[in-house]
Amino acid sequence: MVGQFITFEGGEGAGKTSVLNSVANQLIEEGYPVLTTREPGGIQIAEKIRELILDRTHTEMDARTEALLYAAARRQHLIERIKPALLEGNIVLCDRFIDSSLVYQGYARGLGIDHIYEINRFAIDQFMPDLTLFFDIPPSKGLERIAANKGREQNRLDLEDLSFHQAVYQGYQLIKERFPSRIQTINAQLTLNEVIDLTYKEILRHLNK
Amino acid sequence: MVGQFITFEGGEGAGKTSVLNSVANQLIEEGYPVLTTREPGGIQIAEKIRELILDRTHTEMDARTEALLYAAARRQHLIERIKPALLEGNIVLCDRFIDSSLVYQGYARGLGIDHIYEINRFAIDQFMPDLTLFFDIPPSKGLERIAANKGREQNRLDLEDLSFHQAVYQGYQLIKERFPSRIQTINAQLTLNEVIDLTYKEILRHLNK
Repeated sequence: MVGQFITFEGGEGAGKTSVLNSVANQLIEEGYPVLTTREPGGIQIAEKIRELILDRTHTEMDARTEALLYAAARRQHLIERIKPALLEGNIVLCDRFIDSSLVYQGYARGLGIDHIYEINRFAIDQFMPDLTLFFDIPPSKGLERIAANKGREQNRLDLEDLSFHQAVYQGYQLIKERFPSRIQTINAQLTLNEVIDLTYKEILRHLNK
Repeated sequence: MVGQFITFEGGEGAGKTSVLNSVANQLIEEGYPVLTTREPGGIQIAEKIRELILDRTHTEMDARTEALLYAAARRQHLIERIKPALLEGNIVLCDRFIDSSLVYQGYARGLGIDHIYEINRFAIDQFMPDLTLFFDIPPSKGLERIAANKGREQNRLDLEDLSFHQAVYQGYQLIKERFPSRIQTINAQLTLNEVIDLTYKEILRHLNK
């Protein structure tokens, strides 16, 4: 595997998507080959799986069914999009990946981190991220940012109450303890430019290891 | 859990579907409450997942994606159909279940029995079958039966070559060794009436334990 697989993680309002796009541009300007993506990544099968998950016209979907479907969509996105890019030597920057499932489904939704890790380990096989950046902001501040950002399209997660976002934050702390060498923390309370700068430097440090 | 969950397993041409229906009728005549089912069991979400798996218009589906989707469909069928029937005290007779995935995907398709067991254990949670009947017939004889049965609608598995069916047979031997107390073997080379009789007696022995 010649490329580098870097994932961006954190609660809502941490700014990770904006940072990801800015850092990608900086890396490209410096001559690095970069692919930015997020699930389901325009992959047809993965998109169809997502449609199935979000289609609320049918009877209620069991939480474990949903977790297996997310893992299936992740697998296909990984195989069709991320893996070929890594084989071509790209730096792949992916907005959310396995840790989001561990935290949101495993911890905040209560399905169990170990259970969700099991099915996702099967989905990912040998393609664990080389580096994961956790954008660290207290959940109350993240939600303030979302509320202030009128241009942002609200998603299902934005609408959860504070206690859910606090559980997500706690979940990320547990995941950081479990994967201390893979997950690096970025202080996301700084200004956007400062966060971009920190992130860029962290990625360069990783690439030059 | 007051009901009993009984699964029927075996290669193609073992006659398990015919036997299942006959035995279900006998049990009902004796006054037992019975539900017969097979995946996806008419469950809307599970049917849609199956459609996705079988829809070959889009680009090729990865084998692990497919395994996760089968596990998702199994989960929903279990939760919507099998679990409520068990809670009501029914004997649930299910045509193929977790062992088919272990054997066909895990062993014959080479994904690994342990890997497929992991994701299916997550799908099934505490609902492992109470009893599994393995209909034992050499693969060559099973295929002869299929060829002789003009009325049978051919499925994808029927069209595989003998070596695949031999791998399936070997896979079932491994699964029997792994779950010796759950899986009972029925000699499926006898006449249909003899097989039905053996199966009925085996189920009664289990119910009266």
